[in-house]
Amino acid sequence: MHTTPHKTIDFWFDCASNYSYISIMRIEQLAKENQLSIRWQPFILGPIFQSFGWNNSPFVLQKQKGRYMWQDMIRECKKYGLPWQKPTVFPRHSVLAMRIAVLGRNEPWIGDYCRAVATANFVDDQDISSPALLDALLRELSLPSEQIMTDAISDENKQAFREQVVTAQSKQIFGAPTFFVGDEMFWGNDRLDDAIAYATRTNS
Amino acid sequence: MHTTPHKTIDFWFDCASNYSYISIMRIEQLAKENQLSIRWQPFILGPIFQSFGWNNSPFVLQKQKGRYMWQDMIRECKKYGLPWQKPTVFPRHSVLAMRIAVLGRNEPWIGDYCRAVATANFVDDQDISSPALLDALLRELSLPSEQIMTDAISDENKQAFREQVVTAQSKQIFGAPTFFVGDEMFWGNDRLDDAIAYATRTNS
Repeated sequence: MHTTPHKTIDFWFDCASNYSYISIMRIEQLAKENQLSIRWQPFILGPIFQSFGWNNSPFVLQKQKGRYMWQDMIRECKKYGLPWQKPTVFPRHSVLAMRIAVLGRNEPWIGDYCRAVATANFVDDQDISSPALLDALLRELSLPSEQIMTDAISDENKQAFREQVVTAQSKQIFGAPTFFVGDEMFWGNDRLDDAIAYATRTNS
Repeated sequence: MHTTPHKTIDFWFDCASNYSYISIMRIEQLAKENQLSIRWQPFILGPIFQSFGWNNSPFVLQKQKGRYMWQDMIRECKKYGLPWQKPTVFPRHSVLAMRIAVLGRNEPWIGDYCRAVATANFVDDQDISSPALLDALLRELSLPSEQIMTDAISDENKQAFREQVVTAQSKQIFGAPTFFVGDEMFWGNDRLDDAIAYATRTNS
């Protein structure tokens, strides 16, 4: 365990997840206002859902819940002042996007990158599984896209990505976004403010 | 459709549901502060879950989610200043309790009754499927328990109860608590404040 300059919140997210989109857009500003560090913890929900016997998102498998969720997203994005457009494909495959996020999780560009991918998915209705799109997003951030794309699919980074998913499962994560302050789990964008408040009064 | 003296929120709830407990304890005060009418809409989740192919609560079927929920309840009840004790049996059968609620849904005692049942379940760890307990709760409210218990299991009230469940399904309700302001659905105690705010600015 390394020491951190101030209190820390672990942020488990998947850019394919619609409620992760809201937290991705909010968390860096909230952390700054509350003098918290974020540990970005990219993972993917697919293997988690598969472990429950589900072959897709519960928002697809449960029609009623899915239908409600799209209404809720309109209201929630309005509440938080975020742009929103229902994607024509859901959920989109996010493996490559999240491999890049694992590679960059400790880099200063991680927040900008995640916001760019989540915005592409949930505002601009773009295919975030496309290497060409991810390449373009990285270039727009003035990042060395070619090197990043190569490193993202290296054996070492693929292994780091797999380990994230294993760690998520070992922490009993069942959805995204999920926040941890120490061992205390908070699930869903609805609990981000509670997680922040908890972190500000906890040594973590 | 009858006219209501002021704006109205439909409150779909099941006293077996832990997040319903929180809303049952909160809603009457919130409605009063915001000059809203509540239409109490008792139902049971069991047939809804069965229609999804589930033979129990998702909090039982999904171990990880269930484990998290019990942690979340402690924090949420603390947040809202509500007493809380994890029940030793979950979920408890609430058919009789909810039949009584259907019978009393337009009576002045409905709020007190629901709070008494939900408190028995989630604070005092009592068996709300027990007719003796429900009888005692009604008597504590100085209500004619014998008459109410008889009327609750009349054919007419059983039919009214079944119709509540059918209506819940036709409204695509998939969990509890669920709030409606007109046709706008809000799911979960987490959205009660949003539903209230929506109702105060909507003609409903």
